[in-house]
Amino acid sequence: MKQKKRSIDLTQVTQWEDGIATRVEDYLAAEEPLEMRSGNFPLGVTLRTPGNDEELVAGFLFTDGIISRREDLISLQTPGDKTIERNFVDVTFHPDVQLEAGSTTRRFSAGSACGVCGKATIAELRRRGLRRPKSTTLFDPEMLCGLPPRLRAAQDVFARTGGLHAAALFSPTGELLVVREDIGRHNAVDKTIGWALLAGRLPLSDHVLLVSGRGGFEIVQKSIAAGIPLLASVSAPSSLAVQLARELGLTLVGFLRGRRFVIYAGEERIAVSASALHGGS
Amino acid sequence: MKQKKRSIDLTQVTQWEDGIATRVEDYLAAEEPLEMRSGNFPLGVTLRTPGNDEELVAGFLFTDGIISRREDLISLQTPGDKTIERNFVDVTFHPDVQLEAGSTTRRFSAGSACGVCGKATIAELRRRGLRRPKSTTLFDPEMLCGLPPRLRAAQDVFARTGGLHAAALFSPTGELLVVREDIGRHNAVDKTIGWALLAGRLPLSDHVLLVSGRGGFEIVQKSIAAGIPLLASVSAPSSLAVQLARELGLTLVGFLRGRRFVIYAGEERIAVSASALHGGS
Repeated sequence: MKQKKRSIDLTQVTQWEDGIATRVEDYLAAEEPLEMRSGNFPLGVTLRTPGNDEELVAGFLFTDGIISRREDLISLQTPGDKTIERNFVDVTFHPDVQLEAGSTTRRFSAGSACGVCGKATIAELRRRGLRRPKSTTLFDPEMLCGLPPRLRAAQDVFARTGGLHAAALFSPTGELLVVREDIGRHNAVDKTIGWALLAGRLPLSDHVLLVSGRGGFEIVQKSIAAGIPLLASVSAPSSLAVQLARELGLTLVGFLRGRRFVIYAGEERIAVSASALHGGS
Repeated sequence: MKQKKRSIDLTQVTQWEDGIATRVEDYLAAEEPLEMRSGNFPLGVTLRTPGNDEELVAGFLFTDGIISRREDLISLQTPGDKTIERNFVDVTFHPDVQLEAGSTTRRFSAGSACGVCGKATIAELRRRGLRRPKSTTLFDPEMLCGLPPRLRAAQDVFARTGGLHAAALFSPTGELLVVREDIGRHNAVDKTIGWALLAGRLPLSDHVLLVSGRGGFEIVQKSIAAGIPLLASVSAPSSLAVQLARELGLTLVGFLRGRRFVIYAGEERIAVSASALHGGS
């Protein structure tokens, strides 16, 4: 309840409609900076919607490659109840974790004489150890069509503010495991994966990740890092997202709306009829 | 034409509809990394939709506070036609510009013993010199309602890919000056403001900036940096965006759809009837 309250603000606004202005109360999606650090070592600051902060930090550290397993985290400390204005999480790492200055801000490798390109960016992710998700699950198209309504039913903040992104994990049969919301799409995904990491559920080899916005490059990267075989979104992916999904073997579904979707990569994991595929129509 | 082509990719996908799978061709919004540097000094790497790269870099450097005027830029060099794979811009600054290591990655100040909060974040922006936009223009609600249809008519890529954000500048009477698109919301705004900077049009004291997505914290910050008095979006702002707009005197309009909108901050710049305001209805 407490966290739920922190994710919404109520404020006075002026609504204009057809020439008539009215003062009304309106809900806003809360956005506040969160500082991550390990003792005196700064790990970064991110803007996020308060709530599930430990999951956010755990998911961020994992999908960014700073840690590679649950055991790399000894503790995640947030301030107690009386200091809720203090937006920080203090991370204690296992002694084996190597922290470099700037390691949490250098998301892309630059520096080659010819500039950077999509191919170099993907090669860097391979060097970081990202591999094709290990999964032999065949997903049912009808199951996929049932996911967006379940996500909407589970979203408690979005309907009131219109400003939050959601990410949700589903079992192979379409059972909702967890849903997380945030003003930032990446944060919603980090919270979801952080939940799985802290619950000892990684890799998520049989699961579907559904995001309310686009399935962009960084969302694809985070999904692969968590071993997720199928990423679905209700909107369009980018060219680099599709390229990365194809090269690293993630199944990428977009425009999942009603009884229609588009498969951009990895269609071998979706049970579509081969005859229909060749026959067209 | 060339830049337009680079912003779209065409690819083969599988479309599933009501049990029937078909191979079709589909347009994707292009996303590629762009490296910014000044000689050997790295300024950062961002994912963006190719096109208007010089504007993107100029707008980013300006709204991030690295430069404060057109004259701070001596040149922006992009590779010639034969090397379009090279995604970089080389910036030559005026000798007066001070570059610090990490200056382009440290967007928020952290480090106080009590963590960070919205108030500290806004205080930091004040220290950077952000001030209330100087404008005495009174904007017409009917003019505002006419902007989203004009933006949609001008957007050439969005309709085909469904994956791009747009930002557009309008005159006080609603005339469209420029529209820029990008896979990233911040980039679309940086390209728009960069266009104005390079054209010697800053500050934009009488203009309206319309964005296709949310009016989030960083979009508010960029608008104020450019002197824009009115930021409008078709969706919801966050709590921190509203807080910053109120404290620094930006007029913030959300949910601008059809003949309705919500004023979150600075309603003195919008010509709404005071009697209607108090009378309600």
